[in-house]
Amino acid sequence: MSKVGIAAYGTTPFTIDEQKIESVLLKSTKNLFENNSKINKKDIDAVLVSTNNNSKYLSPILSEMAGIQPKIAHSIESLCNSGTNSIVSAYSYIASGLAEMILISGAERHDSPGQILQWDNSRGEFKHPIFWASIFTKSYKREFSISDERLAVVSVKNHKQAKENPNAYSNNTYTVQDVMNSKKLTDDLKLLDCSRPCTGSASIILATEELTKNITDNPVWITGIGQKTTSASFTKNKSFTSMESTKIAAQSALKMSNHTTNDIDVAEIHDAFSVCEPMALESLGFSDYGGGLDLVDELYETNNFKINPRGGLIGSGHPLGATGISQTIEITQQLQSNANNRQVDDANIGLIHNMSAAATSSTVLVLEK
Amino acid sequence: MSKVGIAAYGTTPFTIDEQKIESVLLKSTKNLFENNSKINKKDIDAVLVSTNNNSKYLSPILSEMAGIQPKIAHSIESLCNSGTNSIVSAYSYIASGLAEMILISGAERHDSPGQILQWDNSRGEFKHPIFWASIFTKSYKREFSISDERLAVVSVKNHKQAKENPNAYSNNTYTVQDVMNSKKLTDDLKLLDCSRPCTGSASIILATEELTKNITDNPVWITGIGQKTTSASFTKNKSFTSMESTKIAAQSALKMSNHTTNDIDVAEIHDAFSVCEPMALESLGFSDYGGGLDLVDELYETNNFKINPRGGLIGSGHPLGATGISQTIEITQQLQSNANNRQVDDANIGLIHNMSAAATSSTVLVLEK
Repeated sequence: MSKVGIAAYGTTPFTIDEQKIESVLLKSTKNLFENNSKINKKDIDAVLVSTNNNSKYLSPILSEMAGIQPKIAHSIESLCNSGTNSIVSAYSYIASGLAEMILISGAERHDSPGQILQWDNSRGEFKHPIFWASIFTKSYKREFSISDERLAVVSVKNHKQAKENPNAYSNNTYTVQDVMNSKKLTDDLKLLDCSRPCTGSASIILATEELTKNITDNPVWITGIGQKTTSASFTKNKSFTSMESTKIAAQSALKMSNHTTNDIDVAEIHDAFSVCEPMALESLGFSDYGGGLDLVDELYETNNFKINPRGGLIGSGHPLGATGISQTIEITQQLQSNANNRQVDDANIGLIHNMSAAATSSTVLVLEK
Repeated sequence: MSKVGIAAYGTTPFTIDEQKIESVLLKSTKNLFENNSKINKKDIDAVLVSTNNNSKYLSPILSEMAGIQPKIAHSIESLCNSGTNSIVSAYSYIASGLAEMILISGAERHDSPGQILQWDNSRGEFKHPIFWASIFTKSYKREFSISDERLAVVSVKNHKQAKENPNAYSNNTYTVQDVMNSKKLTDDLKLLDCSRPCTGSASIILATEELTKNITDNPVWITGIGQKTTSASFTKNKSFTSMESTKIAAQSALKMSNHTTNDIDVAEIHDAFSVCEPMALESLGFSDYGGGLDLVDELYETNNFKINPRGGLIGSGHPLGATGISQTIEITQQLQSNANNRQVDDANIGLIHNMSAAATSSTVLVLEK
């Protein structure tokens, strides 16, 4: 099987601008081509669009606007991990031999319909993600006797890191007290505990080993893939203090790449809400059960950007269909030693964790230089 | 590379019933499992949902309802050829080694948002597909000096064939005069020239050679795949009397399968409107340019079900996301000599043609026993 590499990427700033979804999609695609003059658009066999937007036929529309006539063209949706689902699909098209080079573009508007979980009747009237996040937060705090102040460090750390990311939605730093004083949304969540909906796009090109090496002198390879869906309704979760789908996806991805969590130098973690970061760190194996916040504290105190260097979803913003692709671009830049003030030392192996709907589904990817 | 086989299938009748999309999806999935007791749901690595419905997270929802916990789970949308895009994606997951068995479920409601091409400003106010179909019809009639009556035989033939399909939307036969007398929608189209929106679902299981043989004694293999997107806007079409994307997709699929159109014993053709059948027959190579209607006449007069045995989109109805899967099930049944009164003699090699939006994109599949 041919190796599958990340040959190029492009992005937009994450904002709350009013833009048509087609325009947002095209912007990161244009940014990608502007920065990678060696790409021949005729070599692009597939264009995959990752989004929750209700517009149809977006892949042929993007293709026409960008001057591409692909073989394969369709949209992919799986709420918040649409982006990594698209990357895994692209991987399979290349690894199967059906395609050699694929453009994946993710985009969302700030008013994405993916933000309200209309379909889940187990949620009663509480269809906004803040309600599952509140139950997770309440359960996690109770299980480990954790205060709101302690959890707030996740937001403080990730906003600090986002300040070094020129495309992040947030450009502010906050103290624990700022987080505590931000608008109270539920008993357990303040505004600054939450990732914010925004408008943004991220594009990436995956290709065979040969084509990747033709395009970039600094290739990054996808060496591990793990995915798992345990349910759709969060009330079916085995636990509200750990992430079963994340555990299974991580085991698969690490096994495929022949690594353990100890080998990972830098990781993007799906911190849709503060509590998600320590929970995911535990479920991924970066710390013991209940030890996630100790790791967050340590990283914050030592100014170590290892976890969520671009600022996570909390600092960067969360344009659903673009998030998994933006996370993958960040790890690519880290492994290329191309992350400026966010750069983690000796970053050779990276991990991406992207999930949906109370961790009812998760994707984990491992990337290597 | 492992062969990829069609191991099982299920379907619903195509109707105009008011049903929730989740219920429609589940019905064909249940039908599939009821008819195939040898499937172990734990072996299902991926669940792909093909639809234009605006509901999100449908693959995890279907998975939860059906008792499946897949690795890979997402929706795929590409208007009217979402179904075959999903089948090709599933093929690549299996051929790449990322999955061994995949459930693909396509479903649509009669009021699908995929039926209005909101995004195409080149269409001005004329965003319903009947407008591109009118221009195609007018162009084709002018190019080959063809009368409305001559074209009407497509609808007459396909309604006749649909009468032998218990799941078809239509259960009526019509004469040329009936088609001519049906409601006039545009200068060039009558109601009976058009495929009808409907509610319906079709599900299929693709698997590795070994797993396919474990499930069925009558396996059918996917041996040819071709796809092409030339644009999104129909005004960019090279021609209004032939289908460029169909030509390219057919060449790729036939080359991959080492066959020519002459080898094809039975085919499902995307007859969204009467004119599409002769145009597609020509672009696929079943007849010379301009000879498509002669072939349709001949098949009709000899009661030969070779083209669109289940009644095509015109006779069966067109639930967008389910159509490509339903076409694939029909060819599978034909190759299994399991098509009852629709059975074509000596059906060993079959072809599926599924397209979107004025043939701006096309998929062609070749199936073999």
